[in-house]
Amino acid sequence: MDEIKEECGVFGMYDLDGGNVVPDLYYGLTALQHRGQEACGLAASHTAGERGNIRFCKDAGLVSEVLSADTIKKLTGDIGIGHVRYSTTGASVAENAQPLVLSYIKGSLALAHNGNLMNTPQLKWELIQNGAVFHTTTDSEVIAFHIARERVHTRSVEEAVKKTVKRLKGAYGLVVMSPRKLIAVRDPYGLKPLCLGRRDNAYIIASESCALHAVGADFIRDILPGEILTITGEGMHSEYFAQEKAAHCIFEYIYFARLDSVLDGVNVYDARIRGGRILARTYPVAADLVAGVPDSGIPAAKGYAEESGIPFGFAFYKNSYIGRTFIKPTQKEREAGVRQKLSVLSTAVKGKRIVLVDDSIVRGTTMANLIHMLKKAGALEVHVRICAPPFLYPCYYGTDVPSNDQLIASCRSTEDIKDLIGADSLGYMRREDLKEMVQGLPLCRACFDGDYPVKPEKTE
Amino acid sequence: MDEIKEECGVFGMYDLDGGNVVPDLYYGLTALQHRGQEACGLAASHTAGERGNIRFCKDAGLVSEVLSADTIKKLTGDIGIGHVRYSTTGASVAENAQPLVLSYIKGSLALAHNGNLMNTPQLKWELIQNGAVFHTTTDSEVIAFHIARERVHTRSVEEAVKKTVKRLKGAYGLVVMSPRKLIAVRDPYGLKPLCLGRRDNAYIIASESCALHAVGADFIRDILPGEILTITGEGMHSEYFAQEKAAHCIFEYIYFARLDSVLDGVNVYDARIRGGRILARTYPVAADLVAGVPDSGIPAAKGYAEESGIPFGFAFYKNSYIGRTFIKPTQKEREAGVRQKLSVLSTAVKGKRIVLVDDSIVRGTTMANLIHMLKKAGALEVHVRICAPPFLYPCYYGTDVPSNDQLIASCRSTEDIKDLIGADSLGYMRREDLKEMVQGLPLCRACFDGDYPVKPEKTE
Amino acid sequence: MDEIKEECGVFGMYDLDGGNVVPDLYYGLTALQHRGQEACGLAASHTAGERGNIRFCKDAGLVSEVLSADTIKKLTGDIGIGHVRYSTTGASVAENAQPLVLSYIKGSLALAHNGNLMNTPQLKWELIQNGAVFHTTTDSEVIAFHIARERVHTRSVEEAVKKTVKRLKGAYGLVVMSPRKLIAVRDPYGLKPLCLGRRDNAYIIASESCALHAVGADFIRDILPGEILTITGEGMHSEYFAQEKAAHCIFEYIYFARLDSVLDGVNVYDARIRGGRILARTYPVAADLVAGVPDSGIPAAKGYAEESGIPFGFAFYKNSYIGRTFIKPTQKEREAGVRQKLSVLSTAVKGKRIVLVDDSIVRGTTMANLIHMLKKAGALEVHVRICAPPFLYPCYYGTDVPSNDQLIASCRSTEDIKDLIGADSLGYMRREDLKEMVQGLPLCRACFDGDYPVKPEKTE
Amino acid sequence: MDEIKEECGVFGMYDLDGGNVVPDLYYGLTALQHRGQEACGLAASHTAGERGNIRFCKDAGLVSEVLSADTIKKLTGDIGIGHVRYSTTGASVAENAQPLVLSYIKGSLALAHNGNLMNTPQLKWELIQNGAVFHTTTDSEVIAFHIARERVHTRSVEEAVKKTVKRLKGAYGLVVMSPRKLIAVRDPYGLKPLCLGRRDNAYIIASESCALHAVGADFIRDILPGEILTITGEGMHSEYFAQEKAAHCIFEYIYFARLDSVLDGVNVYDARIRGGRILARTYPVAADLVAGVPDSGIPAAKGYAEESGIPFGFAFYKNSYIGRTFIKPTQKEREAGVRQKLSVLSTAVKGKRIVLVDDSIVRGTTMANLIHMLKKAGALEVHVRICAPPFLYPCYYGTDVPSNDQLIASCRSTEDIKDLIGADSLGYMRREDLKEMVQGLPLCRACFDGDYPVKPEKTE
Repeated sequence: MDEIKEECGVFGMYDLDGGNVVPDLYYGLTALQHRGQEACGLAASHTAGERGNIRFCKDAGLVSEVLSADTIKKLTGDIGIGHVRYSTTGASVAENAQPLVLSYIKGSLALAHNGNLMNTPQLKWELIQNGAVFHTTTDSEVIAFHIARERVHTRSVEEAVKKTVKRLKGAYGLVVMSPRKLIAVRDPYGLKPLCLGRRDNAYIIASESCALHAVGADFIRDILPGEILTITGEGMHSEYFAQEKAAHCIFEYIYFARLDSVLDGVNVYDARIRGGRILARTYPVAADLVAGVPDSGIPAAKGYAEESGIPFGFAFYKNSYIGRTFIKPTQKEREAGVRQKLSVLSTAVKGKRIVLVDDSIVRGTTMANLIHMLKKAGALEVHVRICAPPFLYPCYYGTDVPSNDQLIASCRSTEDIKDLIGADSLGYMRREDLKEMVQGLPLCRACFDGDYPVKPEKTE
Repeated sequence: MDEIKEECGVFGMYDLDGGNVVPDLYYGLTALQHRGQEACGLAASHTAGERGNIRFCKDAGLVSEVLSADTIKKLTGDIGIGHVRYSTTGASVAENAQPLVLSYIKGSLALAHNGNLMNTPQLKWELIQNGAVFHTTTDSEVIAFHIARERVHTRSVEEAVKKTVKRLKGAYGLVVMSPRKLIAVRDPYGLKPLCLGRRDNAYIIASESCALHAVGADFIRDILPGEILTITGEGMHSEYFAQEKAAHCIFEYIYFARLDSVLDGVNVYDARIRGGRILARTYPVAADLVAGVPDSGIPAAKGYAEESGIPFGFAFYKNSYIGRTFIKPTQKEREAGVRQKLSVLSTAVKGKRIVLVDDSIVRGTTMANLIHMLKKAGALEVHVRICAPPFLYPCYYGTDVPSNDQLIASCRSTEDIKDLIGADSLGYMRREDLKEMVQGLPLCRACFDGDYPVKPEKTE
Repeated sequence: MDEIKEECGVFGMYDLDGGNVVPDLYYGLTALQHRGQEACGLAASHTAGERGNIRFCKDAGLVSEVLSADTIKKLTGDIGIGHVRYSTTGASVAENAQPLVLSYIKGSLALAHNGNLMNTPQLKWELIQNGAVFHTTTDSEVIAFHIARERVHTRSVEEAVKKTVKRLKGAYGLVVMSPRKLIAVRDPYGLKPLCLGRRDNAYIIASESCALHAVGADFIRDILPGEILTITGEGMHSEYFAQEKAAHCIFEYIYFARLDSVLDGVNVYDARIRGGRILARTYPVAADLVAGVPDSGIPAAKGYAEESGIPFGFAFYKNSYIGRTFIKPTQKEREAGVRQKLSVLSTAVKGKRIVLVDDSIVRGTTMANLIHMLKKAGALEVHVRICAPPFLYPCYYGTDVPSNDQLIASCRSTEDIKDLIGADSLGYMRREDLKEMVQGLPLCRACFDGDYPVKPEKTE
Repeated sequence: MDEIKEECGVFGMYDLDGGNVVPDLYYGLTALQHRGQEACGLAASHTAGERGNIRFCKDAGLVSEVLSADTIKKLTGDIGIGHVRYSTTGASVAENAQPLVLSYIKGSLALAHNGNLMNTPQLKWELIQNGAVFHTTTDSEVIAFHIARERVHTRSVEEAVKKTVKRLKGAYGLVVMSPRKLIAVRDPYGLKPLCLGRRDNAYIIASESCALHAVGADFIRDILPGEILTITGEGMHSEYFAQEKAAHCIFEYIYFARLDSVLDGVNVYDARIRGGRILARTYPVAADLVAGVPDSGIPAAKGYAEESGIPFGFAFYKNSYIGRTFIKPTQKEREAGVRQKLSVLSTAVKGKRIVLVDDSIVRGTTMANLIHMLKKAGALEVHVRICAPPFLYPCYYGTDVPSNDQLIASCRSTEDIKDLIGADSLGYMRREDLKEMVQGLPLCRACFDGDYPVKPEKTE
């Protein structure tokens, strides 16, 4: 459909008491499934076992498809990492699934990566010049190679990781696992989220706090930008390899992260409620009903309703059985396509002036269809409020925004967009209001204003 | 989990202009997927083609899994029927999938059935006494056999259907397809829903009106209790084989039907809103937040909020990626199991007195876990309101309520249940209020009061 | 390729000591796999268990594919039957797989059938007139229906079987299993083979004696034409429902049966050796090497060599890895297709005059290619000897000979065929010599002479 | 069962006229399937296309299973290589499937390898010390890495290959494919076979000549020991990187190679015939029948018969439907296991003194069972002749002989073995006669005499 795509989620766990972490990896990855539905995998090992014996399972598909009960039963360990992946630029989804499991100078290594590097070509070229050979087209393999090369000259894997990440440009939440160590790294700007949890004597690393709760763990703290956190049998220790002004990805709060997560101190549900409230103050309108586009527009609609005093309600029913293999309607049946997924609750909208809240307008076709459906069902007016500014700039850090020529906002005024989608009014969140939405948290909002924390270099 | 299960949904379509109806069958079945997720299938034929050549595809799985793009492309026809199935009493889900496609005296016949017969043993015995042989354990096969036997002495398939359905005791929404006719039958009490739609010169039969909208058709009317509607190349005609006082299944409004459907003139979304309003009047309480258990408790919560003036909001996030093949937590981790599916939005509930609305309490374990989770997250009070009376009697018409000894309400007072689940107060919808919820529609509410429209006979 | 196809093999076993027969069913069916490779299945039950509880597993595929180790482990019983199937006239291979397992007046029944009925349309029509309904297009379902109908008026299942088989016209080796009885029936002419074996206190029925040896059983005797043999907990008893002049299918000896089987007292390997000897006497030729087309031409080649004194040897290597899913060469690459399967042993044939023996020439294309390959490799002459007369008449009893217009012999002289395939000489077994080949056993050789033991009626 | 296992077969093809070689890769690999049945794959590219775009498909399974018609249709190219693999020491068959496809300094590279390296640990250690990272446990990845590393300092890929193979110790038939070059390499001793063929303007490299014939190509010549043959758009050129006394693997002639192949000038079928003749001269015996153990003992039996004048014949029928997934009989049913696969042709052996010829005795259990079966069927005497000397030494070059303690010959006299297997006499081919069998070709026969052409170093 007409969506922004996140690329990944990572999860790692080390139970110092020796308990089997694999079922928890399964539950943790299920809790992160919203961050990536195309492929997944996990790797685990026994810290007391033979060195280097990391076993893994990964493939294209959902967690519940790839990791069967049988696999979970056979693949055990007290240390492990996992990954969920959205889309991939490589040819084959299955080949590029993570974690990457490799053997190198010190035995074996597994690595899972959320984010996108900007200097991959340079890093890869350097390795290739020295005779390196690549099996996949992922950034992760480049990172792993550098760690392996650095490991030759360093005393510990965390030191090799440190030397490696200093060279990376871009966004990353990284979990690295050697047979007896679990390492978490977050990029210097904190572009991608990563946090630490604990359950008894087990430590957990996850892209979002919701995954900690899924395994019954408590949230301890966020991994800090530029931090390398190493968990060994003796405990935890941290190193900081970079000091930059934090720039957390605004889109986690607007769209990616789960409502029940707290990222860098900001509760996602609250942020969306606040976003709706801001919109209500910025773009007030006389109306009878505030409704959200399911699922992600609903909390902001709730916030708009609270602030405006206009009743909150539902305008659409969402069919949750539209599978990934759903047979797409042909191009000319585009409205039919939207209709399979969302249908109007007619009695709820008939004769009403509606404020319709969503998190973004990408191509505009879906929104146009929804407005058309509402009006056909008897809605008198449809006022669209978008809980984000218009996309104007590409993201280099792993968010898959469609290219400029597909973005409705790339060369049109808000007035033009309003007319195109058939709305009675249209209001985008103002860029200056984003900060309030996340209570002053330092943000990366380059997709809205082009101000990139890590400057993109010229690449082909 | 802890759920009531519907057993089936049916869909039929005949395009008198000769257009291919198979893609529409696919969309229609997808719209009815909530009525059955274990198996599905469709059968189609060309009315202008060789008589008797009904082709079909059916198997265990979701519509998007069983009916691949390839199948949809190869299997064409201007007349067809389809089915989605929830659970099956037979050993093998795949063997009992529908539609049933058979050859008999007049060529071939396909049949799809939503509901449950009470006199199957007698009807089957009668056939078996005459040497009949059964391949499946479904009621549908019994119905098909009787139609085939009657067809020997009758002039038309609809007449054979009429003679057959006169003998059936129980609940049914039936679509029957001969190579050139589409027949819809609804039981004399209208226990199961069935409606008629139209798109240009194509007629559609569906268990719920939402499936009509999914194919861009207009709702024409409900099939009436005791009606046999036959659609042929010449048009439609109806016969009525029984006249009984209507008794529509109340559970369609409480739980089964989609929010955007209208069944027998009653809008499902509105009914649930009204249900919540009634609960607010019957069981008022001082509270700060009204929340529903996702997904089915949410509209009633909205109604409660509207009537009571207490703010409506969200208390839980639901993970929609819990697959059917999800690895179940062990018995002792039951709370963990609930936690995978629903997690608390802590900032939304902390320090609040909450009214929590759901559509039923079956075993009580899920509700107890949810209350525990809310209190752990800081909720001060949790007042549970159930938008249905307690289950006390078995359903003989196709609703899969757990057996008595698993039902929390079967031998406990409301006060006891309240204590068991740890709620601060508990209110069930009163039986006398159900009528208001559906605006006076005549109901079957035997699961609440034991007053069965079709009396169960003693069976072993 | 260019082959005659058998349609089925059956196997049944009842261990009166209560041992599990399912692994033996597996081994027995594997030994019969040459009789059918498209689908297979088995059904089993515990005679001491709940009546009517016959469980089964069947699908398209080889025995080793359909019946997994897991299935074999779960599906147990002291009585059971199985089936392997070649091709099917029905649309779906999987739907028509056997055994057929049904419920009827006396509980349940399983049935497996090798052969073909000629009066299926009449028998089916009769049932259909009485309101019967069919799920498959197999003869077996018709037989099962008749047994069920007769069972209403009879005292035992074997009596119902007797009444049923009296009405069948055609060829059949039948195993029927009720929850406590194993019944074997052979058609009145003994067209299809069926024999009885024993291992300790277990009785085995099989299409060929090779399957008895596969389970370590001893051959007891052939089931007689027109015999119904019933095995119960008390032992065995026989009834004879018809007395006809035996007419055993000649093609079992020429092609279908396994070399290590003995059918109706005639050893298959010996028969083929004798066939080759007869050919040597009938069509002597000066040559340096006698070779058979692998695999079925090899024993007759051996016989020809023994009789003629010309050395026996090998001319071809056969690639046994050509899977059923092998990607077929395009039409114009027909020779390439043969080349994948058979390649010439050049040093063995170079400069030699060769007698090439095979069991049949169907379309002639394969033989033409083989002769071409031999000559290209340096063979001086190729004299073809066919261990059967030319096909001239269709088989109505279950052997799938291509239709007349595809048969090279249907309207051509032997001389013409010789020229077409490029042979230096060609000799077919004379019809009058077939009897010697099987040591005087009474034969059905209708495919060669049109003298049908059961007359075909006019059918459309 | 009780078998020696080869590890691989390779195939490569480059059509200078630009024709699609993928169907030929399929046919070629099918012809080599006897060399490896556990996994297979192919890689192809268009020489005129975008550099580096090598596409591939590989997985566990037979050629006809892994390479579907659909894959063959989509995956095209005028240059390609393929591989079949027997067993693997790595954990996962699928992960270690070949060809290996990699990206490196010059774009991409594919590699397929038949054989085994003895200095893999050293070569791998060297790379790992420099920071290399490995995905698989195959020798092939080590070779590919070295090529990539050498490519940095060399002018062409063939030069990098040359520098690499100079460092390899062991046996290899190698095909390497860069997007515009096809390179074949054979180890300095010619331990593994590799040959060149041509069809019009297309060049083919294959492990055995039978694969050339399968694609309609002519055999040109064997790749020479120590030769690097490079095929480009301009034609072919050769380089020789080593000069050693040739030592061709004797087991290719005894067991591995297909009967219709010619390796290093020796026809395999003729070699086996000669082997049988030698045995007849060395170990004459009075007997009535010479039979081979199917399939590999049959040609030698034929040779024995020719030389001795004792009639050649068949003693066993082999069931070719024993699938790889065949359910194994339990340990105590070991004879049952052999019985599924081979059954005695009783009339052929009854009352006869038999010479039974096979290519090897590994554990002895199979041979003991066969002799027991023959005697039970009435054979008077069984004289066993083995067309190879006893295994006494491990093979380091890729032949999977069971470990010493499983080999019946490792610490027993021929007399003892004869008694153990129940034979009336036993004769192994004498080591000094092997040379005659292959007409004086220089051999590696280390598995018989411990004289290794490439000395094994101490490894752990």
